[in-house]
Amino acid sequence: MTSVSLRGDHRAVSVRLPNGTYADFPALFLRDNCATGFHPQTLEREFDLTSVPAGISISSAEIEGNELVISWATEDLQSRYTLDWLCAHTPGKTMTDPASVEPIVWRGDLQKNDLPRAAASDLLSNDAALLEFLIATKKTGLAIVEGMADDVDAGMTVARRIGFLRETNFGVTFEVMSKPNPNNLAYTSHALPLHTDLPNQELAPGFQFLHCLANEAQGGGSTFADGFAIAEDLKTLDREAFDLLAKTPIPFRFQDGEYDIRKHHTVIQLDHFGTVSEVRFNAHIASVFDMPADQMDAYYRAYRTIMAMTRDPAYVMTTKLNGGEMVIFDNRRALHGRAAFDPSTGFRHLRGCYVDRGEFDSRIRVLARGVEAAKAA
Amino acid sequence: MTSVSLRGDHRAVSVRLPNGTYADFPALFLRDNCATGFHPQTLEREFDLTSVPAGISISSAEIEGNELVISWATEDLQSRYTLDWLCAHTPGKTMTDPASVEPIVWRGDLQKNDLPRAAASDLLSNDAALLEFLIATKKTGLAIVEGMADDVDAGMTVARRIGFLRETNFGVTFEVMSKPNPNNLAYTSHALPLHTDLPNQELAPGFQFLHCLANEAQGGGSTFADGFAIAEDLKTLDREAFDLLAKTPIPFRFQDGEYDIRKHHTVIQLDHFGTVSEVRFNAHIASVFDMPADQMDAYYRAYRTIMAMTRDPAYVMTTKLNGGEMVIFDNRRALHGRAAFDPSTGFRHLRGCYVDRGEFDSRIRVLARGVEAAKAA
Repeated sequence: MTSVSLRGDHRAVSVRLPNGTYADFPALFLRDNCATGFHPQTLEREFDLTSVPAGISISSAEIEGNELVISWATEDLQSRYTLDWLCAHTPGKTMTDPASVEPIVWRGDLQKNDLPRAAASDLLSNDAALLEFLIATKKTGLAIVEGMADDVDAGMTVARRIGFLRETNFGVTFEVMSKPNPNNLAYTSHALPLHTDLPNQELAPGFQFLHCLANEAQGGGSTFADGFAIAEDLKTLDREAFDLLAKTPIPFRFQDGEYDIRKHHTVIQLDHFGTVSEVRFNAHIASVFDMPADQMDAYYRAYRTIMAMTRDPAYVMTTKLNGGEMVIFDNRRALHGRAAFDPSTGFRHLRGCYVDRGEFDSRIRVLARGVEAAKAA
Repeated sequence: MTSVSLRGDHRAVSVRLPNGTYADFPALFLRDNCATGFHPQTLEREFDLTSVPAGISISSAEIEGNELVISWATEDLQSRYTLDWLCAHTPGKTMTDPASVEPIVWRGDLQKNDLPRAAASDLLSNDAALLEFLIATKKTGLAIVEGMADDVDAGMTVARRIGFLRETNFGVTFEVMSKPNPNNLAYTSHALPLHTDLPNQELAPGFQFLHCLANEAQGGGSTFADGFAIAEDLKTLDREAFDLLAKTPIPFRFQDGEYDIRKHHTVIQLDHFGTVSEVRFNAHIASVFDMPADQMDAYYRAYRTIMAMTRDPAYVMTTKLNGGEMVIFDNRRALHGRAAFDPSTGFRHLRGCYVDRGEFDSRIRVLARGVEAAKAA
């Protein structure tokens, strides 16, 4: 049975919610979220919080049907909140988010066949299939799309089903193949040790889409490692190294004739809750470390420790992409690399683009909305 | 006189630099930055730091002309570093950066005529003028371009001289005018209290370009405030509020038929050094606060305090943009808003786009490179 009582000088209400728990809702919180304060079309808040006093108080609070009805002591206004809304927005509880997916970490024994996998045609035509695949891809941070059209734009077409493309100094899309006068090691035939792309940007690109158009050269196998697994193990095995990597910003820098993009970042990024949210590892564009000399030995020890983990078969899975396959990975979690290849033995061409995490998550939420609506219908 | 000595078991060198200061350079730091380890064209590091032992030591260190020459005890290699390089990369010292500009904060008494101002034609044709203007714009976070072509693409043309445009869910460019079925309050004729755009994104857009094509309606004056000035004063006047705003993430959210983009952020963002690097204030898309109920009163007090500052004439400058002017501001520092206007009295049309801070700073560095080269020639 839902019940309600005024608390703390009428400056909060305590509600017994339908699930049996009691929750406190402060008066200012309720006033700030009164439906009358929002624009009906844009859903944006137009209410001016400074138009009411800080000490706003409630004159009465009642349950009517499935709504909490508040009258205000200081204002001629009735505010209504559904019990569903109160459950969803109980203070101290993060709102349910279809895009909030717990990562499933993996290590070097992961096989290509174990990865989430979908056919391009399904992703392009079927919202439910796309939703399921996006959630699976968020869990592992690495997935395969098969049956890609033999068309240089096919990767972009799938990526754009998810969100607009994140442009970078390398363009909206980029061609991974051996080129004359390369401005990036990816555009050579050299081996690329495991790395994440563009940590020199303030926000490194989120999900990377690499469509394999041809992979006929000898060599050129792909490598991947789960940065979250590495960080998790490092935290257990060597807490001092983990803390240094999570607390010490180092400079990253890319420069060519047109750009000079620099940023200090930590190698391990923790979110507001202290959870690892990102790994940045790219020895190619790590710039000259600039911590004081007396901190360098300790930092180099930590940095070499995580670097060694990125080369350890315990963490590195090796596979070969086939023409017609596209790999998708969270560039802020999964490291990627490749073996050297011999361009005289055959053509190797991957075409890449990025969709940031924000747009990726937004697509999950909007697709989930559609699936919920279909269920309700 | 430059001199050099080995220290700490040959695991570092101490160098007396041409400016008379002594600096220590650890062996691993020098080895990691030996020029032989970098790709000659991409300038990226190919050297594998794990290929040398952690305890690497130096057999000899000498000054030859303007170079430090190191021979390694553990490797048959000679490494050379110019004294200029050693000065620039002394551990503990941040590398010189032409884009590192100290902000000059401003308050409500700032006049439009006091702002950095340049003619579009100069910015488009003259690199030195562009460089000077970009640095001035970084200092104030707000500037005016005049003499814009009467062309809806004129703003993009100037913005693209600086960097590629940051796409968002509102497009690569956006039209600020009264529209039917708006998905954003900017697209109504309502007043817009001061705010920063898109704090619901993981990385809010950096510099915003608003080209005023027509401003003939009654009302519609523009307002600006310097978020850095507000944060600076808040820190002095009410440290508790400042700390709460800098430490408590709150949810931001934008949703419409196509998108649902959410992110928790603090209102005040501090960088690695504890300096205010960003202010996020947007009451329209602040979502439902989710801190525990017993923290809400304190947080609302802090939030209302900064909100009141954004409405205080001490901080708010009011001006009216004329057709043919474009305002540029750092959206992560300067708040912007407008008075309501009456669309029946005349047309008001602004066209906007964004260039992120990373590309803005990169353009300053590349232009500065050109100016240096011209000086040297």
